[in-house]
Amino acid sequence: MAQSSVSSLSIKKVNAGNVADSDDLLAVEEPLEIRLKYHGPSGPVEQNISITMRTPGNDPELAVGFLFTEGILKKFSDVVSVSQNSLDGNIVVVELNDKLDFDMKKLERHFYTSSSCGVCGKSSIEAVRTVSGFRFPVSGFTIDAALLHTLPGLLREKQNVFESTGGLHASAVFDAAGKLILLREDVGRHNALDKLIGAALENNMIPLSETILLLSGRASFELIQKASMAGIPVVAAVGAPSSLAVELARESGMTLIGFLRNERFNIYCGEERVVLQV
Amino acid sequence: MAQSSVSSLSIKKVNAGNVADSDDLLAVEEPLEIRLKYHGPSGPVEQNISITMRTPGNDPELAVGFLFTEGILKKFSDVVSVSQNSLDGNIVVVELNDKLDFDMKKLERHFYTSSSCGVCGKSSIEAVRTVSGFRFPVSGFTIDAALLHTLPGLLREKQNVFESTGGLHASAVFDAAGKLILLREDVGRHNALDKLIGAALENNMIPLSETILLLSGRASFELIQKASMAGIPVVAAVGAPSSLAVELARESGMTLIGFLRNERFNIYCGEERVVLQV
Repeated sequence: MAQSSVSSLSIKKVNAGNVADSDDLLAVEEPLEIRLKYHGPSGPVEQNISITMRTPGNDPELAVGFLFTEGILKKFSDVVSVSQNSLDGNIVVVELNDKLDFDMKKLERHFYTSSSCGVCGKSSIEAVRTVSGFRFPVSGFTIDAALLHTLPGLLREKQNVFESTGGLHASAVFDAAGKLILLREDVGRHNALDKLIGAALENNMIPLSETILLLSGRASFELIQKASMAGIPVVAAVGAPSSLAVELARESGMTLIGFLRNERFNIYCGEERVVLQV
Repeated sequence: MAQSSVSSLSIKKVNAGNVADSDDLLAVEEPLEIRLKYHGPSGPVEQNISITMRTPGNDPELAVGFLFTEGILKKFSDVVSVSQNSLDGNIVVVELNDKLDFDMKKLERHFYTSSSCGVCGKSSIEAVRTVSGFRFPVSGFTIDAALLHTLPGLLREKQNVFESTGGLHASAVFDAAGKLILLREDVGRHNALDKLIGAALENNMIPLSETILLLSGRASFELIQKASMAGIPVVAAVGAPSSLAVELARESGMTLIGFLRNERFNIYCGEERVVLQV
């Protein structure tokens, strides 16, 4: 049932004009169908709500994290069961508690139009604000600049599949002392973060209010939206943020750091949480 | 109406413990709604079929390229008009020729389940094979290994927004002599390729049968699927390919190259198109 996260194949490696046959490891990419099971007005319903291209592994977490960051689940007890098909593991069914109130019509429309609900940045941000239950207090949690510099190195040390394939995105949360709390990897960066948030939800760790989220790549609007749903106050990306990622982080009162590498970083907003001088 | 691809803001730059206020440039990310306009059984219909987070610029190309790589448009003359709203430019309406035959029901289902139609890699590949009209002959077009090494440098020279923001993915096609034919950038790598393919369609360049597609990042299943739809025989990525990207390229008879950087590359399939020795 369980699929591997890595597959190997024979390739040709070309290096400065020299050609050699070689075995290579690839990050596996396979579709995952997420289905909801619930009691509709006229009996039980099972319905496909998303297919995502993902790296197999932690699939129940991915499904639960996705449903949570999309605002369908409010807490882990909204879930009665999570089951994965035994044939190839590419279908996960999440059974919802009868007490959970949600509007399937609204949901369909929501997925139909992707995870952004508006047609301008403002309405996208508005949609997130409506759904996310967390607020970020301006005081309290802080992180030392010196510690921030160490996080990408810690991430690389722990990234199993990336080391072998070079093909995976990673999301990790650390506490203020730089201790790694959770790490998840995937070919899709949204999936890596959904897996992490699903794991946090299952372990009763939401909101992740005293943590830093480290992203191995760039910071897009949707990644900041997911972090906001999980109550993460500080997001640090190894790559660049987009304009809308910065806008959402600012309006939410989050701290957003970009280009965290080579003893440098940029603070885009929420600098009060970064302790620059000791 | 036209939005900028880059926005500037004031940030704090931290470099080896020193902090400085600085202006920074960000890649703009904004939602784009793509609408179809066509004659339904009971009169004219205008319907939203996708919202994507993209970098403004070349939006009509993005819409047309997306519809083509999703198999809705077969040729540019299937399009009667492309219009963009004047308020913020975040809506593009593509009016279809009455003669174009397509099944809106199937289309809804298609988008509802993302661009992958199956629940295993095999059915995803099967779905692409059904839609793509191009075949890749095993002989004919070839490219020199020495020339391949020069392409990432040529791409970087031409990538305007990337240089200033570090935040954009690029897709470019070159001919066998290494001449740049088309280059498009976007915060989303699928969008960058859809823009490029949309431009090629508008300029009657499809199939791009004697070209190399260079991807600035990793090669996923969906990028290979889009390249296949455009009839591009050789895809070279600066980053790693996924397992399903390699499978699709192999089954389609395409050439797939990964890790094209620092005088090295890997050939995952279709090595007959790569001239290793001169």
